[in-house]
This record gives sequence, C-alpha cells and structure tokens, in this order.
Amino acid sequence: MKKLFKEVRLDDIITDILVNNDRIEKISPKISRADADVFEANGMIVLPSFANSHTHAAMTLLRGYADDLDLFDWLSNYIWPLEAKLTEDDVYWGTRLACIEMIKCGTTCFNDMYWHSKATAKAVGDAGIRAVISQVFIDHNDPNNVQKQIDSAENFFSENQDSKRVKFALGPHSIYTVSQESLTWIAKYAQEKKKLIHIHVAETQKEVQDCQAKYGMTPIEYLHSLGLLQPYSLLAHCVWLTENDVKLIAQAGASVLHNPVSNLKLASGFFPLKLLKKHGVRIAIGTDGASSNNNLSSLEEMKFAALLPKYIEMDPKLYPAQEVFRDASLSGFQAMQIDAGLIQEGKLADFILLKNENFLLTPNYNTISNLVYSADSSSIDTVVCNGQIVMNRGQVADESLIINKVNEIKNKLTNKRGNNV
Amino acid sequence: MKKLFKEVRLDDIITDILVNNDRIEKISPKISRADADVFEANGMIVLPSFANSHTHAAMTLLRGYADDLDLFDWLSNYIWPLEAKLTEDDVYWGTRLACIEMIKCGTTCFNDMYWHSKATAKAVGDAGIRAVISQVFIDHNDPNNVQKQIDSAENFFSENQDSKRVKFALGPHSIYTVSQESLTWIAKYAQEKKKLIHIHVAETQKEVQDCQAKYGMTPIEYLHSLGLLQPYSLLAHCVWLTENDVKLIAQAGASVLHNPVSNLKLASGFFPLKLLKKHGVRIAIGTDGASSNNNLSSLEEMKFAALLPKYIEMDPKLYPAQEVFRDASLSGFQAMQIDAGLIQEGKLADFILLKNENFLLTPNYNTISNLVYSADSSSIDTVVCNGQIVMNRGQVADESLIINKVNEIKNKLTNKRGNNV
Repeated sequence: MKKLFKEVRLDDIITDILVNNDRIEKISPKISRADADVFEANGMIVLPSFANSHTHAAMTLLRGYADDLDLFDWLSNYIWPLEAKLTEDDVYWGTRLACIEMIKCGTTCFNDMYWHSKATAKAVGDAGIRAVISQVFIDHNDPNNVQKQIDSAENFFSENQDSKRVKFALGPHSIYTVSQESLTWIAKYAQEKKKLIHIHVAETQKEVQDCQAKYGMTPIEYLHSLGLLQPYSLLAHCVWLTENDVKLIAQAGASVLHNPVSNLKLASGFFPLKLLKKHGVRIAIGTDGASSNNNLSSLEEMKFAALLPKYIEMDPKLYPAQEVFRDASLSGFQAMQIDAGLIQEGKLADFILLKNENFLLTPNYNTISNLVYSADSSSIDTVVCNGQIVMNRGQVADESLIINKVNEIKNKLTNKRGNNV
Repeated sequence: MKKLFKEVRLDDIITDILVNNDRIEKISPKISRADADVFEANGMIVLPSFANSHTHAAMTLLRGYADDLDLFDWLSNYIWPLEAKLTEDDVYWGTRLACIEMIKCGTTCFNDMYWHSKATAKAVGDAGIRAVISQVFIDHNDPNNVQKQIDSAENFFSENQDSKRVKFALGPHSIYTVSQESLTWIAKYAQEKKKLIHIHVAETQKEVQDCQAKYGMTPIEYLHSLGLLQPYSLLAHCVWLTENDVKLIAQAGASVLHNPVSNLKLASGFFPLKLLKKHGVRIAIGTDGASSNNNLSSLEEMKFAALLPKYIEMDPKLYPAQEVFRDASLSGFQAMQIDAGLIQEGKLADFILLKNENFLLTPNYNTISNLVYSADSSSIDTVVCNGQIVMNRGQVADESLIINKVNEIKNKLTNKRGNNV
C-alpha cells in the first residue's frame, strides 16, 4: 500500500508526497488518492528529519542521576556503578525511551555506541526508526585482551547482519582504551567489510597531551598513521584539533560529530567550528548520551550549536540557522551513509511535519530560524521514517508502557533512591 | 470559592493544597472537599512557577524575522524599521502570544520593558498572569527632551495605578540613552514612590569604555553616584563588571538580571557569575526579548545558565541545578518584590504541576535536574497564577485566536514577506 501525504507545504508551495514502501516516489500537487493510504497534512510544513550523529541511547536510564559533579567523582561513584548493574533487558527499555524522545523531537536516525548492542538493535527495530549501532571495542591496552576482542567483533559481525533500518559499525571507544594493534586491525577490517567506524577522539586536552607524550603525535595524526581516517570514520567530539589535524580529516573525507551540550556540561573545551568549516569538513550534530546532556533533542542541540561559536568568536553571523539545520539533518545522514535528509523523489522517506498552530513557531518569517532558535517537541506534529508514520499527530506507540518500564528499572537500580526535590 | 488541589506531590510527599482567593491557605493531606472547587492532581509534582526577570514581551512579533546578522545591520535594517510600524494593538497581541509562551513553559510573572506599556498591561491582565511593566524612559541626552520625559512619566504613574497582578516601574533604557539629569530624577522619584527601576547596564564592552571616557567611572559606579543603585533596582545583563562594581551592587541590595541566551546570540561577553555569587548578589534569570533568543522559555534559559559557567570556568560543579532553578523562580519574584516562589501557606498561589508521564522527566532521580537539563513545554501539565488556573492540563485560553491575530500582524508588517525555508 502506498502512502499519500496530501497537501504538505514544501519550500512554501502546497504539494502532495507519495511514498512507496520506504522511498519518496513522487512529489507533485494533486496526486490521485486512489490506491493510497491518505494522510491529510492540511498545509503542514514538511522538512527532513534529524539524524543524531552521536549518542549512547540507553543512558536515558541514568538521566539526572548524577549532575553537577567533578568528572572522576561522577564516573567512578555514580555512572560506572549504576551501569554495571544494567542488563540486556534494561538496555532494551532505555533505548526504547531514547527512541520515543528522539521521535518526539523529530529524529529518525541515530549513531549509537553502548553495551548490549543487540538489545539496542531490537529496540530500534521495534521503535520503527534507524540507527548505526557500533559494537563497543575496548581492550584497555592489555595484550591478553586483543585477540579476544578481535574474535568477539568478528563473531558479532558474522552473526549480525545489517537490516533495512539498522547498520552495525565498529566502535573502538577511544585511542586510550584501545591498543594500537586493535586499532590497526579495525582500520583494515572496516575497509574490507565497508563498515563505519565510530570513535571518541580529541575530546579532552589530557587525551591530546597523553597521546603526544606516548606517540609524539596528536590523536588525529595517530589515527591517520594507523589508517583509521577513512570516509567511513565517524569522529565524535574533536574538540582539541590543530590545523594539521583538520587538514588530515578533510583529506580523508571523515566526518566530525559535534556535541555542543556535552562539551559544555563536561567542560571539555571549545569546538573549532570555524577551522573545520574553513577546510570543508563535514560536521554532523549529535546529543551525546543523556548523562551529559540530559536529553536527546536535536532541536535544543541546534540552538546550542548555533549560539556557542557566535559567542566565542564574537561573530553573530557565524554558523547561521540554515547551516546548523543541515548539519543536524542531511550531514548526519551523509556521515552515516544513509540516503535521506532531502525531500526529493527517490530518497528514503524520512521527514517531519510541523504543527500548523504552535506558539513557538509563530509568527513564521523563517521556518528554519524558528526551528533552530525557538521550537521544542511541541512544535512537531508527525514523524515519518522509512515510509512509516512513527509519530502520528503527537502519538507514539507504547509511550506509557515504556515510561512505566523505565520507572521500574530505576527503582530496581536504586532500591527506590528518593526523589531529591 | 476556594480551590483545592487534591493529591499533589510536594517534596516527595502526597498532600493537598487549599487556595483561598490569591493565596495558599493550607497545605495538608486530606483537606475536605466540601465548599471547594477540586482539581484532581493525581500525584503530580508541584513546584513554584518561574519569574522571567527581563524581557520585551511584544517582540515575539519579530521572532525569527532577522537572525544571524551583525548588530548594527540587525537593528538599523531590520528591527527598528519593523518596530516603527507597531501599533498599540499589535503590542497587545504580541504580548498575549508572549504570555501563552511563558505560561506553557511554566512562567507566571515577568519583568518587561517595551513601548505601549498600557497595551502590555491589558494583555497581562487578560492572560491572567503577573508582570512588572516599566515605562520606557529615553531622552537621547537631549536637554529639550528631559522635562518632557519627566512630565510624561509623572503623568503615566498618576494615571496608571498598580493592580493585583500588574506593577508599573520606571524604565530608563540605559546610561547612554538617558541623560544624567533624568537618571537623577528617576532615582529620587523611585525612592519616594517606592517604584522598581529597570535598566540595561554593562551589557557591552563599548558601553563600559564610553562611560569611562565620559565620566571616569564604570557604568555601575556611575549609577551608584546618581543614587540609582537601590534595593529596588533591576539591573539587566551586567556582563562587564569589575569586582568593585559587584561590591557596590551587593551593598545596595540591587538585583542582577541574567540573560544567558541573549548574551550568546549578541556575543555580548561572559557573565561574571562566580564573582557575583562570591559577593552574594541576587541573580534572577530572564530570557530577554524574542529577537535575541528566540523564545521566552525559562526552561531552556535555565539549561544555558547552568552550562555556560561550567564551560567557561572549567568547573562542572559550578551553578548546580538547584541554584539555577531558584534563580529562575524565587530570586525573580524577590527581585520584583512579589511574595511568590515558595509553596508555603500564606504565599501567593503561583505554581506549576508537572506531568506524571513525560518522556523528558523519565526516569526521575532528581526532579530539579530533570527540569533544568531536560524538560521542555511538554513536561508541564497545569499552571496556577494568583490562585487561578491559567493552563489547565495543557490548555490555555484563546491560544488559536492569538496565534491567528499574530499571523495577521506579521502579514500586515511585511506585506506577506515570504517564508524563507
């Protein structure tokens, strides 16, 4: 059955969108209603959905558990002990909650790194959206771990095939938790198997200093030397870069995943937007996990992304709303090698419809400005992923069920640790 | 008729709140339903509402009209020409939209400065919330204007009395648009009549440099020398302060109105939070107008307020959520001399109820963390101001009417300037 979105507003023109299976088949006014399941859009504005370029979805389970703490105290006394208790089932429900949250904020695709990746994949499948799910690879630089980790990764990829909405990727956590030997294997394996590689890199100044001391190279130079800078490399954070690093990333055609809220919350440092733009590097915006954000809203993330460089560089013209929107949508899909992010015939049918009447979108001189600087989840009416409606006029399937499940998990994890109002 | 809010969750205990007219009369479990209009809260968390400490409400009419521009281009080619066309009626509807937006985000009180203050007052009256509305005072340092402006202010205050929900204040725009003579008169008049004074001060580096050149003093020292630092002084922005400035503000007991999003968007500079806190200055959080934000959400503003100083001072423990929440709520009410911001018997009945089931508030380890770092308008169920329900389970009166009116005004202002998607 085809789906017909009747009377959407696209580039300020009222038209229809016919979706056949997973793709946009035709965009034209007055497409026949015959043989199609019709959704009456009544002039709602249609836009590409968001692609959240870097997150740890199931960490919604830890939202608000530990804020306003020093990094080490935060990790060792709060995050790690709680994470150690998480089961595969917990990760499934945490990811379901993350999917609800992303759908409500207009996101249909995310790039994830977390434990229990099969549970994540199942949750994404059930939620009806897309994800690139990386299999976490950590050997703690222990030679005894290397072969074990490699075997485990090979097993995982032979047992778990990509599907229409889920792609599996390699997830070396970082250059300080994964050995040189493993990173070299990952680079080769990814190239052979055409897999995406998802890694945290140059997030903190300490990481750069340690890398310089150990290898006499910056983290980006080190990845480059190991063959890990590829068009399929997804480089999360990239806060501490030299101009030479930026050139290497640009030459490789790798993508930088930008997480402004997390950079603020963890006081990581200033993201070199101007330098990256100068060299034409693809920047894709992401939320990071709920522990360092604390939500997964690409709407909110765009506002932080747009405002921070204006302030730091004292230039209110820097990173205008149109560019920010593209980097939260199209650039993310491109980084993940997914053929969405544009409302065009032949593209995957991932899009959002904005409410006709919403206080945050009123008045509407410029839809993209309103979306970047003003909107919240109340501004989005309907979300389509892979040709299916995943939010229908504000309604997402299983929302109450999922919220209740997560509340139960919270009680289990904390023995009902009190509310700290 | 009394109002009984049955089974709210207050400090993690289920209780009832009985409201008599404008105030909280009793907080206790199991208050009798007899003779009361009962609202079933079903365990919803109750919190004080927000007080938006600095805004220009009717500038919602200009939301998204001109973004990502240089300050001078922005003001002279976009904002001022459009503002010049605004009628009293336009300001009324723009303020009604601002009130909708603030109510939806949990705000029941704001401190405003804009033209046509009578229209603003009427809009606030009709919306059912509170405001301190300052009468804009600008003489452009022209001696011919001084007496005219003073007469006009005196007339205004003799003709317009404060009401239960609206207080009128003096609104000298800034030290560079108001003469020394007028500022001196304002200081004296405010003290005699016990009026609040609302002024922009130390917003840009240029303002400080010009003031030093002209008077050999910082803007704060200059205000101090004129008697304008009083407990009733509301000092918007205060980005560029010396430690001596901060001491003067602290000694006077004046309040600083902090606008983090506007400071970012206009690249004004870094707000000296740590210094102000060190000297115990009251900081009240505000959104500024929609042109430099572009919304009036205290929820979003809290997140920016909380994260920026962590990043700038490289200290993730700085300005924890509890403090930020207080400064967006209680501190704002205190600055405006309004007896709300605490859920206690005898206090004005201004409060919000959070949804029991909301994706952004799940799980709930810490309500205030969730509110500051995660919530959006979808998280708020019901809003009470002055004992009246102004948002009832998501519904605000006249929302469609107001949105339609603002759309008409936009079309009138721009001759239907196109949508720039």
